[in-house]
Amino acid sequence: MNDNELKKAFDPEAFRADAHAVVDMLADYLERSAGADRRRVLPAFSPDEMARRWDAPISAEASEELLPLLTRVIEDSHHLHSPHYVGHQVSAPLPVSAVADFVGSLLNNASAVYDMGPVNVIHERRIVEWMCGLLGYGPDAGGILTSGGTLGNLTALLAARQVMTEADVWSGGAAAGGELAVMVSEQCHYSVRRAVGVMGLGTDNVIEVPTGPDFKIDTATLAGCLKTAEERGKRVFAVAANACSTATGTYDDLAAIADFCEAHGLWLHVDGAHGASAALSPRYRALLAGVHRADSIVWDAHKMLLVPALITAVIFRNGSDSYRSFAQQASYLFEKASEDEWYNYAHRTMECTKTMMGLKLYVPLMVHGSGFFARYVETMYDLAHDFAARIRSSADFELAVEPEANIVCFRFASSGAEDPSALQKKIRTRVLDSEDFYLVQTDLGGDTYLRCTLINPLTTIEHLEELLELIRAVASEVVASA
Amino acid sequence: MNDNELKKAFDPEAFRADAHAVVDMLADYLERSAGADRRRVLPAFSPDEMARRWDAPISAEASEELLPLLTRVIEDSHHLHSPHYVGHQVSAPLPVSAVADFVGSLLNNASAVYDMGPVNVIHERRIVEWMCGLLGYGPDAGGILTSGGTLGNLTALLAARQVMTEADVWSGGAAAGGELAVMVSEQCHYSVRRAVGVMGLGTDNVIEVPTGPDFKIDTATLAGCLKTAEERGKRVFAVAANACSTATGTYDDLAAIADFCEAHGLWLHVDGAHGASAALSPRYRALLAGVHRADSIVWDAHKMLLVPALITAVIFRNGSDSYRSFAQQASYLFEKASEDEWYNYAHRTMECTKTMMGLKLYVPLMVHGSGFFARYVETMYDLAHDFAARIRSSADFELAVEPEANIVCFRFASSGAEDPSALQKKIRTRVLDSEDFYLVQTDLGGDTYLRCTLINPLTTIEHLEELLELIRAVASEVVASA
Repeated sequence: MNDNELKKAFDPEAFRADAHAVVDMLADYLERSAGADRRRVLPAFSPDEMARRWDAPISAEASEELLPLLTRVIEDSHHLHSPHYVGHQVSAPLPVSAVADFVGSLLNNASAVYDMGPVNVIHERRIVEWMCGLLGYGPDAGGILTSGGTLGNLTALLAARQVMTEADVWSGGAAAGGELAVMVSEQCHYSVRRAVGVMGLGTDNVIEVPTGPDFKIDTATLAGCLKTAEERGKRVFAVAANACSTATGTYDDLAAIADFCEAHGLWLHVDGAHGASAALSPRYRALLAGVHRADSIVWDAHKMLLVPALITAVIFRNGSDSYRSFAQQASYLFEKASEDEWYNYAHRTMECTKTMMGLKLYVPLMVHGSGFFARYVETMYDLAHDFAARIRSSADFELAVEPEANIVCFRFASSGAEDPSALQKKIRTRVLDSEDFYLVQTDLGGDTYLRCTLINPLTTIEHLEELLELIRAVASEVVASA
Repeated sequence: MNDNELKKAFDPEAFRADAHAVVDMLADYLERSAGADRRRVLPAFSPDEMARRWDAPISAEASEELLPLLTRVIEDSHHLHSPHYVGHQVSAPLPVSAVADFVGSLLNNASAVYDMGPVNVIHERRIVEWMCGLLGYGPDAGGILTSGGTLGNLTALLAARQVMTEADVWSGGAAAGGELAVMVSEQCHYSVRRAVGVMGLGTDNVIEVPTGPDFKIDTATLAGCLKTAEERGKRVFAVAANACSTATGTYDDLAAIADFCEAHGLWLHVDGAHGASAALSPRYRALLAGVHRADSIVWDAHKMLLVPALITAVIFRNGSDSYRSFAQQASYLFEKASEDEWYNYAHRTMECTKTMMGLKLYVPLMVHGSGFFARYVETMYDLAHDFAARIRSSADFELAVEPEANIVCFRFASSGAEDPSALQKKIRTRVLDSEDFYLVQTDLGGDTYLRCTLINPLTTIEHLEELLELIRAVASEVVASA
């Protein structure tokens, strides 16, 4: 390696100049995205078109300059900071959170071992303690941070599998526990089903509990589902509930489900990836009533806490259960038994090397105060109610279900001439092609609905009225062209 | 939510000012870490001491200012950019890579669905194509990026489990495939054993293949291990080899193991988390001879490609096997069958929401050229040979094994009065307490050795001679105080 090229690549002054230029680029991006002269929300390129836009070969020699390259990246990305981004459940990050993440990227103190990243280990503990308090857990609760909700659901259910079986399935295999099965809401996120498949239990042993017209678990059916499963020889060990569901943002009745789980000796897991953040709000906290009785809960900070992906908390009512997900010892990394090493999170998290993920949440919490986040959650949930009211009062729109969180599903009322689901899909395609708004779609009871997540705090009811106007306009084009 | 506090938190000009200040802070950090007046490598605080240093409560009101807070974070972190950091296998990130990651943090185009992050989907494809070429794979190869090597090994072995069993174990459960077992190097990383436990196969079905005095799989024992396992009723479906091993950086003989796997119809998985990067170097590529015959390989870019955690490639010889890890359909996210949607990586990666991980590698590859990384790998591997030669020629040091990669295990020669393992542990504690160098330790054949990973390109042989001097000095203190 040539000494000069090395010094150049690591030169602090070259970094200083580059990074200052990129800061200006990003500040300008924020200004354009949020401002009155905002740019398009997304580039409406197909995957193949995008592949052609990025087809330069990776070659031995340098082939691009940093600033033009990053300009193209920003240009071709979705602009989540636009108030017209009302699509997926991904945050428009607080600028201060991205700045903290930048520090983490350069320092690269990649824990989950204390020796690899001492500061994040402590930040992780502080964040988990704070969340435990918000959820109403007692002093025995504890948990960890991990890389996303899918991994979080898997980590929680792995602990349940080990704790709830008499046989040591970690060393003996899943079959040693009998035909293990999990009851889930039929509205559960696909990652719960995926976890069951990964764990070797077989997705045939995912028992779907019906939901009512409000998309909540029909708690009256729980006992029957369990009885039927047991009659078929299955050994149900856990129930997975939603707080809230992905498609409609609906909260299951956690208190009633906790009653059921206690009565039948089942583990209660709550997928709170999106909705656990309601715990911050005195006004919306009741949606989570009973959550402190859950054995485990997953909570994504990158959904409703305004931070970049990925940072997911997995919290256990009995913190020591957290050591059961991965029941193994790893003596070459750790000197002591796992529970004597709270600070070596690799005992409890899938990852050995982990990003400095706590930093991007810890810093905004200290700099803005947790009250800021509580007000954010309330504002977005309030906005969803307001938006739903406008939809309900519009003759040409239909609301799928009254929202509980900041997710609103609705559709343009078909005149009867067109298939309603096909119409919504065509409307969404045209809205996206306009590059002016980004929203998604979902299937509910076999019908397709438009779906908005109101997650950018810059989005107001006026923007949502603009969206309804745009939908009306493209819908009449669709009908005219039919 | 108060309009003013919101505007303030997202104000582009406030971000611009904050971020410029942080850039200067980070440039100063790089200067101090790498320069002649470099600061300590790490803060020598115990976990409990560190917890006390960070004990401020998370309160409703703002309680800290951004810049002093981040100053404390940098102060209390490990300084991987110091040439005296010769510890874990974690990169000292290229500044340009951290800058790219910063852009990714703010944009937060969190894929693994094209609609959530179109640019990263393409970058991910370009990176995987580039890696496939370097490894000598044919046009059918393919794969994905995921959040770390542990998840990578799990993802690869999940595909193996599904492809190599006649029964559909994804839906029917692991037991439907018989008593499934995996043969691994006894030097394998704990994440491989962990994957077997997670998958419900039981860690009792991890069959350790002995390694020789060079820590390579003793290929003469493979047939016997397989026969014994089969006689015990186990259904071995995969062999996991190292390229290279974590403890000593030793490459297994992949060509011989591939011969064995082909002869017996077994899946060959290669854990190349650290060592796959040797594929960039014409001089060191031979260490990987036969790798193109592996059915799957894991390659961490955050180890030997100078980028921040996490970014791990999982590559399959038959790219379509990549769709078998998670054999499920997830119709509410995806409109088409999985293999028709190459651009929706969630079919193939554990994560649904995923960071813009490709960006931090794609940008440096375009800006520096891949030749830069090839020279980096060669420089570090060369340095390890040089360091080993110095150790070999010093009467007071013993080399554990001739290094093949940039990992060097050695020990201070005990005068006979002290227990050699206890002596190395005491030496390491004193070195860390000095805050002047960071190195780790490992157990080999029951004895403790000191272990260096030469991963920071600013580390030179002169620094390593300083380390040997420091070890001599603290060793004589240890002996004197005994």
